[in-house]
Amino acid sequence: MLHFQSYIEEHKDRFLNELIDLLKIPSVSADPAYKDNVFQTADIIKDSLLKAGCDHVEICETQGFPIVYGEKTIDKNLPTILVYGHYDVQPADPIELWDSPPYEPVIKKTAIHPEGAIFARGACDDKGQMYMHVKAMEFMTETNQLPCNVKFMIEGEEEVGSVNLSTFVKANQEKLKNDVILISDTGMIAQDVPSITTGLRGLSYVEVEVTGPNRDLHSGLYGGAVANPINILTKMIASLHDENNHISIPGFYDKVEDLSDAERSEMAKAPFSLDAYEKSIGIDSVYGEKGYSTNERNSIRPTLDVNGIWGGYIGEGAKTVIASQAFAKISMRLVPNQEWEAITELFKTHFESIAPAGVTVKVTPHHGGQGYVTPIDSIGYEAASKAYYDTFGKKPIPQRSGGSIPIVSLFEQELKSKTILMGFGLDSDAIHSPNEHFGVWNYFKGIETIPLFYKYFTELSK
Amino acid sequence: MLHFQSYIEEHKDRFLNELIDLLKIPSVSADPAYKDNVFQTADIIKDSLLKAGCDHVEICETQGFPIVYGEKTIDKNLPTILVYGHYDVQPADPIELWDSPPYEPVIKKTAIHPEGAIFARGACDDKGQMYMHVKAMEFMTETNQLPCNVKFMIEGEEEVGSVNLSTFVKANQEKLKNDVILISDTGMIAQDVPSITTGLRGLSYVEVEVTGPNRDLHSGLYGGAVANPINILTKMIASLHDENNHISIPGFYDKVEDLSDAERSEMAKAPFSLDAYEKSIGIDSVYGEKGYSTNERNSIRPTLDVNGIWGGYIGEGAKTVIASQAFAKISMRLVPNQEWEAITELFKTHFESIAPAGVTVKVTPHHGGQGYVTPIDSIGYEAASKAYYDTFGKKPIPQRSGGSIPIVSLFEQELKSKTILMGFGLDSDAIHSPNEHFGVWNYFKGIETIPLFYKYFTELSK
Repeated sequence: MLHFQSYIEEHKDRFLNELIDLLKIPSVSADPAYKDNVFQTADIIKDSLLKAGCDHVEICETQGFPIVYGEKTIDKNLPTILVYGHYDVQPADPIELWDSPPYEPVIKKTAIHPEGAIFARGACDDKGQMYMHVKAMEFMTETNQLPCNVKFMIEGEEEVGSVNLSTFVKANQEKLKNDVILISDTGMIAQDVPSITTGLRGLSYVEVEVTGPNRDLHSGLYGGAVANPINILTKMIASLHDENNHISIPGFYDKVEDLSDAERSEMAKAPFSLDAYEKSIGIDSVYGEKGYSTNERNSIRPTLDVNGIWGGYIGEGAKTVIASQAFAKISMRLVPNQEWEAITELFKTHFESIAPAGVTVKVTPHHGGQGYVTPIDSIGYEAASKAYYDTFGKKPIPQRSGGSIPIVSLFEQELKSKTILMGFGLDSDAIHSPNEHFGVWNYFKGIETIPLFYKYFTELSK
Repeated sequence: MLHFQSYIEEHKDRFLNELIDLLKIPSVSADPAYKDNVFQTADIIKDSLLKAGCDHVEICETQGFPIVYGEKTIDKNLPTILVYGHYDVQPADPIELWDSPPYEPVIKKTAIHPEGAIFARGACDDKGQMYMHVKAMEFMTETNQLPCNVKFMIEGEEEVGSVNLSTFVKANQEKLKNDVILISDTGMIAQDVPSITTGLRGLSYVEVEVTGPNRDLHSGLYGGAVANPINILTKMIASLHDENNHISIPGFYDKVEDLSDAERSEMAKAPFSLDAYEKSIGIDSVYGEKGYSTNERNSIRPTLDVNGIWGGYIGEGAKTVIASQAFAKISMRLVPNQEWEAITELFKTHFESIAPAGVTVKVTPHHGGQGYVTPIDSIGYEAASKAYYDTFGKKPIPQRSGGSIPIVSLFEQELKSKTILMGFGLDSDAIHSPNEHFGVWNYFKGIETIPLFYKYFTELSK
């Protein structure tokens, strides 16, 4: 066991306050209004990496938001761990549903977090989990226990598709050379059920636009005689799922692997209460693809969800109008083997093909990424497993996540190394939702577990 | 012929400028932000009626916006004409599509309006057409040619369902007693094709709300496993029309009268160019209920149109979220005999019944009104026909309009008198749309034609 407790006790308040200060900055990468805040956040990350003991830290400009790179090399013969994280956050809206302002962090106790949780946008995804690595680094360097070389690559565009990160990675393969990539941007099953994410879904995100008449029309004078872009959009979107909630885009499932019954029954062993699941999000029934369980639907099966829709009069009261245009943002979660660019193209071709006469349809790809699966017999996985065992007293459960970290498969492709996803958040932490939070206990548990991963990975690499 | 030209020539500029001043006030009844402007407009109408020669004018307060009532009785034995109009306007959005600010009226020449048209919200619907009656009244009183008694009832809630007007009418049957009701709130077929609207569609306007999870969810972690309120809403709305674009709400067509082939071929005689129609609104093809022509689809057939839809993330960029709620504003245009309250109830029952498990659906009725048909053998129709003949040199064509003026059937029911709809606007005037306008020629043509209706109606009533 590393001499952790004494150091953490001494600096606990500072570790918390530093994260709270970081959360006060609205680094929303999706909204141009926050541009300056995102750049400002990159500078703060740079300083924090220097303070944590990196020998060299630099802000790498991109065509979008910068990537903060830091490193400390103690011995060329020792393994190198590359830590990835992101300092940008999701938009906070609907802002009115937050119990406290999203950028004014507060610590409140909850049923699941009796020791308190930090409520703020980005608390868990990913500022809180990313900063655990910075503080773990500080601990190891301050106490002379850093067992290997380390590199940090913290980006500011994860929530908008990491477009420029991929360019950066492709252009800096030597600089980013490593033996394993470590990321905390996922969750674990429960406070007492540590888990390692072994699979991620890919993503294809598009925006669609249906245009009918060249101007908004009076719904009385024209109603019934012209294609109403909103009605048409609803028809087109509805047709994307059949009666079994299978996605009806031709070729969509071609590369989807069907898991063996053995694998499925293995998955089914993960602790899960449908009742608790429904209660936690306030629904009376789950819904999804026929023939699959809830845990399968949100992990090993691809999906198509409308993330936003708008058109016509959405103000107070009533307006009898036929809108000229209607819009929707649609994302598809993909499973390993589904090529996201190919799926985006399939969607575009299909969606445009089902547009009836009387309207024109435009599909604009936003971004996307590949799915990923990691083996559970690698040194990295074993090191993580031992680390969790030391701090949680039990072995972690391997689990497939429904989320996407588009660049993980890019890392494997470009840097030829595996990624270990050590997540310390919970599904109930409401990432991407109002009242996002991150348990104080989880924050420190992460800071405590990470150095052990370094220790075991270095030992197992010998 | 009345001595019109000399008077109009003398006051032409003032007649235009008074309307322009009226159009500068954003009397949007649907949006609380404009509350004061609506009240202010009522006061202006009051003054204009006094100046036009009414003996008695009053502002009748309601639970909403006031009704301006004015009257001039010259002889109890002469007939009384009740003029109805409204001083409220539709919201101006989408504001960015206006070539000039909606409340800064400008006169511009167009292909159809070589003598210029006034561009402003409400120019045609209904401030411009309503004000023609005020100026016609002024002309008749100033030149001592008012042949009968007149009453004005100008309301401020037509665009939001005239809820308080119906209360007012029911409570003031004696005060509003009349021999015919005259309204200019419809259009005519073309500049050289005068027409009288003999039918109006009814309306049922509802707002629907689909609620799924109790908060927005991460579309990766939950996507595919829970009912997405937006996907569900699109499915539900899409199901409201079948493959022939018939409305699929059980019982919806029960009271819809099928016109005889004779009536349909009579309708088909109205001058109509499908090509010109498509060009005028920039579509490559019309769309609608199978088995009916464009003119039938937007007049004698009921419709269901989504007027607005919204849910999820509609800001810049991408947000991978499953929204907790999705909303839509839906209106149905009804034909005579369809009871609007009954149809609203049918919709509510059906829409709630098709909600799948996993979501809850709420349907909130906004407002509505009955359809209306007026005979073409009445004294009122004949008087209007003769008036048009004098000013246009040809008899007007009777036409059914797809629009709704909910209170017209209420008038018949409560005041036991028929309504004559003398419209001077054109479909291309873009009412309810950006760049609404009203031809200067049409404005004065209306002021010129209205007194002739008074003359002939009085003569025919003897």
